[in-house]
Amino acid sequence: MTRSRMVVVGGDAAGMSAAHQALRSAQQHGRELEVTVLEATEDTSYSACGIPYWISGEVDSRRSLIARTPEVHRQLGVDLRTGARATHVDHDAGEVHWVGPDGEQRLGYDDLVIATGAPSIVPDWARDASGAPGRGVQVVKTLDDGAWWIRALAGAPKHVVVAGGSYIGLEMAEAMLAHGHRVTLMTRSRVMSNLDEPMSDRVATALDVGGVTVHTGAAASGVERAADGSLAAVLAGDLRVEADLLVLAIGVTPATEIVQHLDLPRSRRGALRPDPHGRLADGLWAAGDCCDVRHRITGDWAYLPLGTHANKMGRATGDTIGGGDLTFPGALGTAITRFAAGAAYAEIARTGLGLVEAQEAGFKAVEVTTDGTTASGYHPDAQPIALSVVGEQGTGRLLGAQLVGGRGSAKRIDTVAMALWSGSSVADLAWADLAYAPPFATAWEFVSLAARRLAERL
Amino acid sequence: MTRSRMVVVGGDAAGMSAAHQALRSAQQHGRELEVTVLEATEDTSYSACGIPYWISGEVDSRRSLIARTPEVHRQLGVDLRTGARATHVDHDAGEVHWVGPDGEQRLGYDDLVIATGAPSIVPDWARDASGAPGRGVQVVKTLDDGAWWIRALAGAPKHVVVAGGSYIGLEMAEAMLAHGHRVTLMTRSRVMSNLDEPMSDRVATALDVGGVTVHTGAAASGVERAADGSLAAVLAGDLRVEADLLVLAIGVTPATEIVQHLDLPRSRRGALRPDPHGRLADGLWAAGDCCDVRHRITGDWAYLPLGTHANKMGRATGDTIGGGDLTFPGALGTAITRFAAGAAYAEIARTGLGLVEAQEAGFKAVEVTTDGTTASGYHPDAQPIALSVVGEQGTGRLLGAQLVGGRGSAKRIDTVAMALWSGSSVADLAWADLAYAPPFATAWEFVSLAARRLAERL
Repeated sequence: MTRSRMVVVGGDAAGMSAAHQALRSAQQHGRELEVTVLEATEDTSYSACGIPYWISGEVDSRRSLIARTPEVHRQLGVDLRTGARATHVDHDAGEVHWVGPDGEQRLGYDDLVIATGAPSIVPDWARDASGAPGRGVQVVKTLDDGAWWIRALAGAPKHVVVAGGSYIGLEMAEAMLAHGHRVTLMTRSRVMSNLDEPMSDRVATALDVGGVTVHTGAAASGVERAADGSLAAVLAGDLRVEADLLVLAIGVTPATEIVQHLDLPRSRRGALRPDPHGRLADGLWAAGDCCDVRHRITGDWAYLPLGTHANKMGRATGDTIGGGDLTFPGALGTAITRFAAGAAYAEIARTGLGLVEAQEAGFKAVEVTTDGTTASGYHPDAQPIALSVVGEQGTGRLLGAQLVGGRGSAKRIDTVAMALWSGSSVADLAWADLAYAPPFATAWEFVSLAARRLAERL
Repeated sequence: MTRSRMVVVGGDAAGMSAAHQALRSAQQHGRELEVTVLEATEDTSYSACGIPYWISGEVDSRRSLIARTPEVHRQLGVDLRTGARATHVDHDAGEVHWVGPDGEQRLGYDDLVIATGAPSIVPDWARDASGAPGRGVQVVKTLDDGAWWIRALAGAPKHVVVAGGSYIGLEMAEAMLAHGHRVTLMTRSRVMSNLDEPMSDRVATALDVGGVTVHTGAAASGVERAADGSLAAVLAGDLRVEADLLVLAIGVTPATEIVQHLDLPRSRRGALRPDPHGRLADGLWAAGDCCDVRHRITGDWAYLPLGTHANKMGRATGDTIGGGDLTFPGALGTAITRFAAGAAYAEIARTGLGLVEAQEAGFKAVEVTTDGTTASGYHPDAQPIALSVVGEQGTGRLLGAQLVGGRGSAKRIDTVAMALWSGSSVADLAWADLAYAPPFATAWEFVSLAARRLAERL
């Protein structure tokens, strides 16, 4: 029996999940498989989502963010090559070209997994002559970026402009405030613009209480530099904000250049669109942030670059290559974060479709927002929580929910996500047997209560 | 149009939910309805579940536990009579007999709702000559019981024996310890015996760390009294424990005496078995702790006396009487509590069937217990959590889960409950799009991870 050669480009969540699951799956199915991973950096399997908490000081070290070191991957049987940047896929020849310490090389494969991720967007105006972010400007993606921020923030308090009002923007604002820096946030539309406006407004209030100066409708468009080349100000159209540092948190873009010459299913922005097994074409696969995912409510493709999907897509892909039949069943757009600074504390979460998203997707959607508490109102652990629930008129189908609340509130979103996952109705969520005791819930659990109020209108 | 007369016996969760929902429903459906509620005590709509937290001091007053006072109910249109004890139902005559301040009376009805609840069990050996719990002995059911405990615990530290190792027993142990009393807990089988043994053992460990002396296999069977009649010791077979006070938390029993002469569907223990609308017979209805509920996993009747079901059953019953068609869709046996004392902190929850329950119900059940964390392992908010997930071999159906964990862990059970509610598979739970960010979850959310480990064995 010949050993099949699997090559993975990209050694983070999707790629390493694919690599290890392929080995397990091949073993289960009695197949011979060798797995090589090409990773451009020296880091594998690290938590990009954890970087703001490392910068804030809540996480104590770079090492803590690394789930598995290259050595561990190798011990588990993966031929991992770090500092190995793939440059081109010659699918006809079954070879991937890559550049490593020893120069240009080629590697033959039977199955190639594209798990190249999605680097942060750095607009041209933010780059220096070398193409990298200019002095005082950085993104938040790699561990090296994290180390950069820790160095840059050392010493006297600085004025930091955060460009981007979504998850990473908020998390970085929190990290800066934790160290006593002054923070101004610029966002193209409004903060957390993937929430409906009333919930977004609640987040904006928390930012205000926490001491963040927020400029909405302000897409960062340039920088001014001092004579010595250091950052002087950040511009957003007519707006000019003096700044020592600029966080670029305006999104990511799928890294699919190495297969851009191939005729593969992909979105306009270049995200690959594999089938639920991760298959793009015979012998060619993709997983993780370089891919679109199927949205289970709309049925359409969506770009939702998150580690949780990357892990699952990698697992399904690797399992299939190894001879199994796991599939990635799609996504709901579930997301969660928090903003905590001084007296401000807001947990934020969403799943499925917001009202506007649902209407745009063609649903006859109805929404109700309910305010309540996470525990019995008389219990000291009770925290405020607000949930916006969206359902479909006529069918009573649950479409989504958005949440802003106090400590311990946000994971309530999983109850809604699980209901959405199984195609439940709003009434199902309203009447489900959820857990009640005074320190944990109201007698009619808040999530169900919010659903009940919507069910009465559907 | 003649006004229809609805009479409700019992003014707590089920009864008052039925009363108010009937009025709303009748209004919606253009019906004329008058609603009278007979409540034996002076209290309505109070949180019995909150009493241990009032005794502990976490809840500041009796008043806090009352969701709606009698005055509020009356303002909302309910003819509420407190101190009105129903004694007999003459269903042929359509009359309920009751005793109030003015002696024996009769009240005619078109629809009668039995919402009489379930008093705590007081064994004969624990009663005094009047039939009430003897000196130093009390249950934990009514607000008067709560006030009794607050008086009894005042002053110097005492030795309190808790008979019963389930929810109320644990919550009372916690309340006693909070005031510096010494606590010995006696339980017939083991602590939290509605958990499978390994999870029960984790709770026992927490009780031990918290300073509770636990006697398992010890069903309280008698008391010894001092010459002055005060409590001297509590007996459990050969076991004798000196004690100042005894908490009776050995269960409740449905109060259905007033209809025991009628031929109605009921269990051996006397719990009524209404249809999903709450109907027992023409014009006769029941809701709340005096009833069995349908268990959605086994399909069998189960006795699960909890405020959350009482509220829902009352709502469905009232809605139907008023002309609507809401139904109570059954229960999963979801429950939650905690035990906190000194260094001990355990949140405890369950839903659906445990392994032994599933096997007893005839399922070919498989169980896997997984230990993990509520947040990314490197994040300071990470708390330990253990989840036992049970599924059906062959079909892959999810059957239930049990949980013991640290702060903020227990409401994770709702994710499982929602999956169970919709008949999901273990794999559905494993692959669902649940919320991830480092302060809130691991990248593969713990509940899904635990389900995934079981899915691999089904």
